Amino acid sequence: MSGKVYLVGAGPGAPDLLTLRAARLLAEADVVLHDALVHPETLALAARAERIAVGKRCGRHSSAQIFINKRLVDAARRHRVVVRLKGGDPMLFGRAQEEIAALEKAGIEYEVVPGVTAALAAASDLRISLTQRGAARSVAFVTPRVAEGEAPSEWARTVAAADTAVIYMGAGDAVRVRDALLEAGVAREMPVALVENASLENSRSVRGTLAGLEALSATRGSGPAVILLGRVFVAVREAELSEAIAAAIAA
Amino acid sequence: MSGKVYLVGAGPGAPDLLTLRAARLLAEADVVLHDALVHPETLALAARAERIAVGKRCGRHSSAQIFINKRLVDAARRHRVVVRLKGGDPMLFGRAQEEIAALEKAGIEYEVVPGVTAALAAASDLRISLTQRGAARSVAFVTPRVAEGEAPSEWARTVAAADTAVIYMGAGDAVRVRDALLEAGVAREMPVALVENASLENSRSVRGTLAGLEALSATRGSGPAVILLGRVFVAVREAELSEAIAAAIAA
Repeated sequence: MSGKVYLVGAGPGAPDLLTLRAARLLAEADVVLHDALVHPETLALAARAERIAVGKRCGRHSSAQIFINKRLVDAARRHRVVVRLKGGDPMLFGRAQEEIAALEKAGIEYEVVPGVTAALAAASDLRISLTQRGAARSVAFVTPRVAEGEAPSEWARTVAAADTAVIYMGAGDAVRVRDALLEAGVAREMPVALVENASLENSRSVRGTLAGLEALSATRGSGPAVILLGRVFVAVREAELSEAIAAAIAA
Repeated sequence: MSGKVYLVGAGPGAPDLLTLRAARLLAEADVVLHDALVHPETLALAARAERIAVGKRCGRHSSAQIFINKRLVDAARRHRVVVRLKGGDPMLFGRAQEEIAALEKAGIEYEVVPGVTAALAAASDLRISLTQRGAARSVAFVTPRVAEGEAPSEWARTVAAADTAVIYMGAGDAVRVRDALLEAGVAREMPVALVENASLENSRSVRGTLAGLEALSATRGSGPAVILLGRVFVAVREAELSEAIAAAIAA
């Protein structure tokens, strides 16, 4: 007789951007295995649970993932309600499939609870829609990060083919990101925004162009950051942009 | 003296996939202007608000959008807390920028509250992560739908350049979507999933290949649907898939 595991998205950072379902599951949980970056107020919702920090902030190794998988299975064998709480959404850069595979192999019941992903919180903070009528009809979410031994991905080509792009886990690697995008044919003048600590009180954003990405990135602190790229991020004054959009709508 | 407008994501459909912040704002709202597809239980949270349905389900015309913009501005001039409640996330296929432009032009204070988008709810329902180590490091969200008079977008090229793609507002147009993707170089055998009513009790998914998209789409009912496309959706039995992933992890 095993318990049930819930792979739950904790959202982008702000504790009140958690879903109602996630809040209820945390309150019911016997055990919570959580990522390092989950907000203390979110964890406090799991009042009666044993709370275990798992997963490094970035650059997690396979061995760590295998260890997490094992702890999840063990927890489900000892408890009724097990929450695996992941930053953002579990199904986007969350390595959920490896945990799902381990749970299925062990015959443990599970459910996935989606969350608000960082890209959408960053767009809210910037007050710039990732899609815009007449300007952007496609958005790519990519990461330049690959695991050790993994084949390099064509993420830069994907960015070049999308109207708007959000790059996860790339802000610490600005030179490589810039060079790969230039090589993929993205213009030096492409508008770029960098948002750190999206949705949190200390959220900070800077805007510029791809050519200046290294300098933009150098201004960031130690918080998690996403890079946003596309014509919608053009760094004109907001009022001008609004007028341009209003004119486009009226035309 | 104007009130404040909150552009709020209602999430993918299930009322408990609303964020805590959205629930609090609904409870405080004087007026709620909401999309047609928002769940009745979600609207019921706005107990003291005047609730106004705006926006057609799809294929909204510019005139309708201009009318919504005007109602938003009018509501902010008469009330303290105005919630504009949008399906999914406001910044992804939500036409938020047009409302933002109208609010800025009128000098009205506003804030954007992100939500869970349909693609992530569909991935949760399918229990398939959109990104997977060694298999998918990029995801594109696109729509083949363009407004009247708008230039056609290169959405099919964006899909072809991404490891995984989610197509919004395309399920009703399966033949055109299939043909555009084939022409953009996507393989006939590319695995496809179609999820209708993602996150709701009557969520339904079917899986197949791009060549069979028309037949998959014909099985759907009248609910909102997204098309998901990529190698991660390969329609093998779940147990086989898990074993393949487990083997890949162990390797």
